[in-house]
Amino acid sequence: MKDVIRLAHGAGGKTMNDLIREVFATPLDNRYLRQMADSAVVEPEHRNPRFAISTDSYTVRPLIFPGGDIGSLAVHGTVNDVAMSGARPLWLTASFILEEGLSIATLKHVVQSMAEAAQEAGVQIVAGDTKVVERGHGDGMYINTAGVGVVPEGVMIGPDRAQPGDVVLLSGTIGDHGIAVLSKREGLAFETDLLSDSAALNGLVESLLSAAPLVHCLRDPTRGGLAAALNELAETSRVGIEIEEGRIPVRPAVAAACEMMGFDPLTVANEGKMVVIVPPQEAQAAVEALHAHPLGQNAARIGFVTDDHPGLVLARTGIGGRRVVDMPLGELLPRIC
Amino acid sequence: MKDVIRLAHGAGGKTMNDLIREVFATPLDNRYLRQMADSAVVEPEHRNPRFAISTDSYTVRPLIFPGGDIGSLAVHGTVNDVAMSGARPLWLTASFILEEGLSIATLKHVVQSMAEAAQEAGVQIVAGDTKVVERGHGDGMYINTAGVGVVPEGVMIGPDRAQPGDVVLLSGTIGDHGIAVLSKREGLAFETDLLSDSAALNGLVESLLSAAPLVHCLRDPTRGGLAAALNELAETSRVGIEIEEGRIPVRPAVAAACEMMGFDPLTVANEGKMVVIVPPQEAQAAVEALHAHPLGQNAARIGFVTDDHPGLVLARTGIGGRRVVDMPLGELLPRIC
Repeated sequence: MKDVIRLAHGAGGKTMNDLIREVFATPLDNRYLRQMADSAVVEPEHRNPRFAISTDSYTVRPLIFPGGDIGSLAVHGTVNDVAMSGARPLWLTASFILEEGLSIATLKHVVQSMAEAAQEAGVQIVAGDTKVVERGHGDGMYINTAGVGVVPEGVMIGPDRAQPGDVVLLSGTIGDHGIAVLSKREGLAFETDLLSDSAALNGLVESLLSAAPLVHCLRDPTRGGLAAALNELAETSRVGIEIEEGRIPVRPAVAAACEMMGFDPLTVANEGKMVVIVPPQEAQAAVEALHAHPLGQNAARIGFVTDDHPGLVLARTGIGGRRVVDMPLGELLPRIC
Repeated sequence: MKDVIRLAHGAGGKTMNDLIREVFATPLDNRYLRQMADSAVVEPEHRNPRFAISTDSYTVRPLIFPGGDIGSLAVHGTVNDVAMSGARPLWLTASFILEEGLSIATLKHVVQSMAEAAQEAGVQIVAGDTKVVERGHGDGMYINTAGVGVVPEGVMIGPDRAQPGDVVLLSGTIGDHGIAVLSKREGLAFETDLLSDSAALNGLVESLLSAAPLVHCLRDPTRGGLAAALNELAETSRVGIEIEEGRIPVRPAVAAACEMMGFDPLTVANEGKMVVIVPPQEAQAAVEALHAHPLGQNAARIGFVTDDHPGLVLARTGIGGRRVVDMPLGELLPRIC
């Protein structure tokens, strides 16, 4: 059983990271993949512009969920991965693996939704591909998008750049996407009017960077949630991160659902949120820039970077204690993006 | 039954083109997609370099076949799509949809094969992603690759540039990939030591372009085979194409298998061949450049472009007649790439 792929291998947590390290890292090793960033910043030799390139396949179930669908998600997710390098996303590719028997109406709905999401985000889908697999070898449709963006001159953002003393910001409430998808999928009793937060963050990043050009790290806490994002940043930068649980914005519906299901909201996926790590002298300007943008209204200062406990994320709990925020293991919520 | 996706929608023929036109073309319309080229040539505003961007998902069955596997194929296929714009492929992304239960050994084999193919082709895989789906919702693994390349200054290649009087070249034998995969998959009696032709064509394209810089069109005849590639070029350029069947190189094993199965070799997939359309004054230099390269040793002049019958491809048959080479409909060989 150990030598086969399990669901946990795709869930964005430790088990997936082990797989990446064990299977992909060595044979594919190069300086871009080694960055382990959300998108690769590539630099043509002897040229000035730097390009951010990223890819993601989307397998969310159900295809249409409250607040979005696999099409808008596939645009937002890749736009965001490119934007997390501080880049301005410009071009996307889109590739579809369709299951025999998928309704054309559903496909049209999803494609339309991609087109709208791309237009809203200001990106163009410049290349595409379609494959069809036999009934029972897919699940309606899977979509891959890859994205390319230009990194503005002077912007230096990467998961290895957090420094002790930096301030950790979060752009809004957590867990909305995961719980919205789950409620629809499982038809759960806690189904509310909660919507996925799926959104393109490139506009928010642009606003942020004009107010706080020295931002060190950006990360969108998707699969594995805020817990995975913070752990990845702490590990890659070899710093400790300390957050205050009480400062993390969580909608009451999400909190209630998590309590009922036994989930930690810190491990639930988001698709329109980002973690910002910024030097202290720019923290206030950064928070104000986030608050001024529709997608950052609930932004909060949630913690700081320290040289204590490098690689570890600690949370101060409501009753004054401290707990380790672990990298989630991976079984939590399959097929959430 | 008309409103659901069928296997033919993914088979590279007319049915797929209808689907693209009906479902994707309008909502996603922009000047890059409108080119309908193998890769999009994108041009950052106010900058000189032009980039070719392409994507393909690979769903070939079986995962490992004579002469390659889904990993090498995923590198070759996308490198070739980028190279078909005359670009020098530089960066790939790779995204995996893995089925629960896939053996790690198989995955390792495939990833290693991708790494080797990328190194041989001189490209770097700069970003990646992994998803896992439940058993019965995939088929071992699907891989998406997207590619970015730089188009050298002065190169102007596109599927709309064929002109009457141009010469049509083919870089080698056809049908090898489709028949090799099929023989393995079906365990057919005609199983021979035939190998897929899967190979990266960017080196061949570079050699070609230094000998014949005015090349008008390049196209790799993958799904749908040579018949689809020629029909697409004739339609996009609004010209007629006339070929001589007897000049098309076909290996005896492929010819025999096609005869047995009732296939037209012109519709069988290739993964290491290209069609070249070149002005007559450069035709000889182009053929010589192809012949001088290991991947072009069997290159042949197979026909010409005419202003008769625009949009149609005609073949002179062995016995002196002419037949229309139709766009294949699409049911031929599912999951061939």
